[in-house]
Amino acid sequence: MFSVDIYKQRRNALKKAVGKGIILFFGNEEVGMNYKDNTYHFRQDSSFLYFFGLDKPNLAAVINIDEDLEILLGNEPTIDDIVWMGTQPSVTEIAAQTGIFKVTGLRELGVLVKKSVASRQEIHYLPPYRSETIIKLSEILSVPFDQVKGGASATLIKGVVAQRSYKSDLEIAEINKAVNISNEMHLAAMRHSAEGVTEKYVAGIVEGLALSAGGNIAYPVIYTVNGQTLHNHPTNNKLKKGQLVLCDSGAETPTHYAGDLTRTFPVNQKFSQLQKQVYQIVLQAEEAAANSLKPGIRFLDVHLIACEKLVEGLKDLGLMKGDVKEAVSRGAHTLFFQCGLGHMMGLDVHDMEDLGEQYVGYSEGMIKSKEFGLKSLRLGRELESGFVLTVEPGLYFIPELMDMWQAEGKLKDFINYDKLSAFRDFGGARVEENFLITDNGYQLLGEPLIKSVVDIEGLSRF
Amino acid sequence: MFSVDIYKQRRNALKKAVGKGIILFFGNEEVGMNYKDNTYHFRQDSSFLYFFGLDKPNLAAVINIDEDLEILLGNEPTIDDIVWMGTQPSVTEIAAQTGIFKVTGLRELGVLVKKSVASRQEIHYLPPYRSETIIKLSEILSVPFDQVKGGASATLIKGVVAQRSYKSDLEIAEINKAVNISNEMHLAAMRHSAEGVTEKYVAGIVEGLALSAGGNIAYPVIYTVNGQTLHNHPTNNKLKKGQLVLCDSGAETPTHYAGDLTRTFPVNQKFSQLQKQVYQIVLQAEEAAANSLKPGIRFLDVHLIACEKLVEGLKDLGLMKGDVKEAVSRGAHTLFFQCGLGHMMGLDVHDMEDLGEQYVGYSEGMIKSKEFGLKSLRLGRELESGFVLTVEPGLYFIPELMDMWQAEGKLKDFINYDKLSAFRDFGGARVEENFLITDNGYQLLGEPLIKSVVDIEGLSRF
Ligand SMILES: [Mn+2]
Ligand SMILES: [Mn+2]
Repeated sequence: MFSVDIYKQRRNALKKAVGKGIILFFGNEEVGMNYKDNTYHFRQDSSFLYFFGLDKPNLAAVINIDEDLEILLGNEPTIDDIVWMGTQPSVTEIAAQTGIFKVTGLRELGVLVKKSVASRQEIHYLPPYRSETIIKLSEILSVPFDQVKGGASATLIKGVVAQRSYKSDLEIAEINKAVNISNEMHLAAMRHSAEGVTEKYVAGIVEGLALSAGGNIAYPVIYTVNGQTLHNHPTNNKLKKGQLVLCDSGAETPTHYAGDLTRTFPVNQKFSQLQKQVYQIVLQAEEAAANSLKPGIRFLDVHLIACEKLVEGLKDLGLMKGDVKEAVSRGAHTLFFQCGLGHMMGLDVHDMEDLGEQYVGYSEGMIKSKEFGLKSLRLGRELESGFVLTVEPGLYFIPELMDMWQAEGKLKDFINYDKLSAFRDFGGARVEENFLITDNGYQLLGEPLIKSVVDIEGLSRF
Repeated sequence: MFSVDIYKQRRNALKKAVGKGIILFFGNEEVGMNYKDNTYHFRQDSSFLYFFGLDKPNLAAVINIDEDLEILLGNEPTIDDIVWMGTQPSVTEIAAQTGIFKVTGLRELGVLVKKSVASRQEIHYLPPYRSETIIKLSEILSVPFDQVKGGASATLIKGVVAQRSYKSDLEIAEINKAVNISNEMHLAAMRHSAEGVTEKYVAGIVEGLALSAGGNIAYPVIYTVNGQTLHNHPTNNKLKKGQLVLCDSGAETPTHYAGDLTRTFPVNQKFSQLQKQVYQIVLQAEEAAANSLKPGIRFLDVHLIACEKLVEGLKDLGLMKGDVKEAVSRGAHTLFFQCGLGHMMGLDVHDMEDLGEQYVGYSEGMIKSKEFGLKSLRLGRELESGFVLTVEPGLYFIPELMDMWQAEGKLKDFINYDKLSAFRDFGGARVEENFLITDNGYQLLGEPLIKSVVDIEGLSRF
């Protein structure tokens, strides 16, 4: 964790932004995989980390703004806890680490909230995504499970987003570390991609490196010869010469800051002519988008720059036709690029996704689109210095979608449907890098990782 | 999954055992780490796997015994699902894989249950451990969430335990695979344990190997220089020459059968004299316990054989004194061996732990003890051919516990408290192997993995 003053400052700024009432923060609990005590790697809630820095399960916090009181709730360790889990600090010791000097047991949460209800205080909480938190809120507030999320506080969400959106130098240093670990994961992925090994074999090496670096993966490793499937899981199928692999993976540091990179490369290092052409369209779109990053530009417009570059390339390739800008404005490119160009990144790989994309990626005057394609653009708003984000254009050849559009004759003035059959088995390609928005433009995060055809084909194996 | 007939036979046997009413089975859902869509590795519920073999999230099943009807509940994939997750089978196709020909949407579960309630059918379900399942049951049955677990069906639990306790040849073949992957994990752990690398560095390699083999870890990797802490997490502390490392780790296969091995070994391969002495006491206890495995013996008695061996060794070491059998019957050994000798293993590493240890590890005439030490013995009952279990004695030097006992003068006729100070920093040692109970005795599962001092010290590094 950072120094205690940082957490106190963050909480003070939050209290000011929220104004009045009480704020409930829930740390995450351990989750059992196949029975209660066989748990996944513990992941603390990111806003809890941001405002308290405490990376332990079974904690909650109450900030009573009206009484200027901060309370940490947790249960004291027993001798059984010490036998099974080692020497444990007391709740008082844990609280002191984040500058809180009032503690109580978790069971007191209901009592505290009832007092606030009785005195008609506003009760603020963030939208819960873990079922344990939903159960707790349902019980404490006496509302049905399915009404808990709806009761989350927009004021609190805005207050949290207003701070977490701007990364401090300390945070940027952590993100640089995360990206550099991610770089090592990608180099290992390229080097181990050879005929005869399975996708899971390589994905296991990639995930192991994230763990070995002291943190964890920031999100499930995508390592697949079916890059057209955006969130594919690695399989036990063996790689074949000539296949194109898409690897989207990133580490989070021990402090839980994320990196998020994608590279696309051939099994056995040699691109086919067609793979090279498609890959270079994506790479050029990525570079054009990155070069346009600066404070003041809307990320929606950066997205559209990338889309135009993709359409230009697809026209050269013979898959598209017509006016580029019109094709993009009509959404014709979404047959091949169905998603958004990128997202904010920080303590979450999709930073603050739990708080709602409208709050995080858009602004009050800019409502997120519901159209196919743009509805998956997580970030659309005007960029500001201190934002950290990804740029990740791609081309994805999804047979089911191509068939659907072709059957409808959809946007046939822009798409050469007769040329699609050669791409049914192509897969997909994506290039993704992470950037900080600076006062004057942008800065690549982490050391540069190879991405040109020449560099990928020339990578020494071991 | 195995052939469809196996699942049909298992369900038929279960229907017979339960007799009447309806049975609700809940598959697991994905769980978000730090927001809803950033999920952990999906782990299906083990009983759902056992009776249906379907390894996908968001499924449920209803078996109406009275009407001899089996229904699989799931939601059909949308075009968005295909874009993001690839070609998806329909629920009908999924159901057919397990021999079920009636399907409906997940929302129908409440309707089906209401019909059963109205016609006064008994409703059987297993104790839930995931909060998502607790929420569903609370809603469907209109009971408060904290009363859901109490309503689980003892009849159903017994019916499930009666089948899952006896491993078939196909299951044993899977467990052998899991143990052999676990062997590779341990060899890598020993080879990478060198001064200057962190615990997490080695633990990451170990976990990566489990993933690379196509499945996952069967439980969180324990790799620690504080082996006295039974469920320690690896840290970012660097290993030092002279330290003793305890590694407890195992893989699960792609079909989710577990292996569970522990080895204890020195950083840089060379045991100190004291480490060698303690380690060999543990090893002898493990071998004595394993050699006594056979149908008809109570595992409680195997546990006590190991405890006596440990006390004999501790007497030789000067830490204990007095009559061995009396020391064990008084529980004096629990200062150094605080837990149980082993547990059932199968689709769960602690097999069926979610169903309750009294049902799985004990019998109607044999109630699990509440005493310190024996309360942690997960398996006590008479062994039968077809059981698969672990044997894992250890010696754990826990300063807080030694101080507590010494202050009380507890069982001081058996413990040489003045000798303990030399062991405050020792740590802990454990050896664990996995066995099948056969008609005549036992069989080691997996290939033998080195465990003698000579073999560990002599292991070639790379
Ligand atoms: Mn991304
Ligand atoms: Mn075990």
